[in-house]
Amino acid sequence: MTTNMSPELEETQGNDHPLVSREAFRDGMAHLPGAVNIITTDGVAGQAGFTATAVCAVSDTPPTLLVCLNRNSSAAPSFTANTALCVNTVGPEHRELAMVFGGKTPMSDRFATGHWQQGVSSAPCLQDAPLSFDCRIIARNSVGTHDVLFCEVLDIKRRQSPEVSVYFARRFHDLA
Amino acid sequence: MTTNMSPELEETQGNDHPLVSREAFRDGMAHLPGAVNIITTDGVAGQAGFTATAVCAVSDTPPTLLVCLNRNSSAAPSFTANTALCVNTVGPEHRELAMVFGGKTPMSDRFATGHWQQGVSSAPCLQDAPLSFDCRIIARNSVGTHDVLFCEVLDIKRRQSPEVSVYFARRFHDLA
Repeated sequence: MTTNMSPELEETQGNDHPLVSREAFRDGMAHLPGAVNIITTDGVAGQAGFTATAVCAVSDTPPTLLVCLNRNSSAAPSFTANTALCVNTVGPEHRELAMVFGGKTPMSDRFATGHWQQGVSSAPCLQDAPLSFDCRIIARNSVGTHDVLFCEVLDIKRRQSPEVSVYFARRFHDLA
Repeated sequence: MTTNMSPELEETQGNDHPLVSREAFRDGMAHLPGAVNIITTDGVAGQAGFTATAVCAVSDTPPTLLVCLNRNSSAAPSFTANTALCVNTVGPEHRELAMVFGGKTPMSDRFATGHWQQGVSSAPCLQDAPLSFDCRIIARNSVGTHDVLFCEVLDIKRRQSPEVSVYFARRFHDLA
């Protein structure tokens, strides 16, 4: 139990304190478990996709999620110009696919792996993903190196898959 | 592989398509695995805390994470007025604590459970959490029913704990 605290003093302490290093932040975040998602888009700027854990629910009214996007990534120009986005949460059978979308494979070659179907947003949705959220991007917010994409959810597909993958401590884990 | 797509047409389809229902969104999000975190604050508006999976890394430059907060929750007034925030990612030994902070327990009684220590931000940090991110809130963004709190990271504590908890399919799972 925290007691005997002087709020004004502590607010000042927090506001003056230096930030952690980039390395410390990355190491810490590697130990925050997150679902493995392949995020895809299509539209005027063409198809693109990347693997990310940085997805979370925002509000159910209206149904909204967010995705964090590195503005320096090869996928960024398409996600900036298009409005369609699909979050495909993957399972152990998609490990190779998650590596393809998380690695250096040219954007034009990534969709040659996996079975894709156009969602109602027009984004490519992974046909056998355990879970997918087909969305339209409604707002973007720049924070440091990344854009936070706010997305309204148009369609959800959930399949009776036995397992969903989580990334934790720099490796994959499967939840059933 | 997606082929023969007309981007202009699909953009229109996505923009016109109705959203999923609140119930469908909640059911979908229940199947997106997320780390179990107890989010705490202290400062001019007093201590508060709640259990949430809606936390994610935003940028390592500067080191920034985000937390989604229901503006109608009992914790919201404190998180709106204070600037200190700690994300405490918990393990299986904190199951009761996660339920206390995720339930109807009055805010004034929640910190009677668990061992808390004031962090550099002034927020209460859970002493034996496997992972904690001590932060200052630098910006807030309202989206639907929720505020997205953007937080710069002042301190990270990672303990050699064997397991971290994830919430998936409406129950706890433990990762080692």
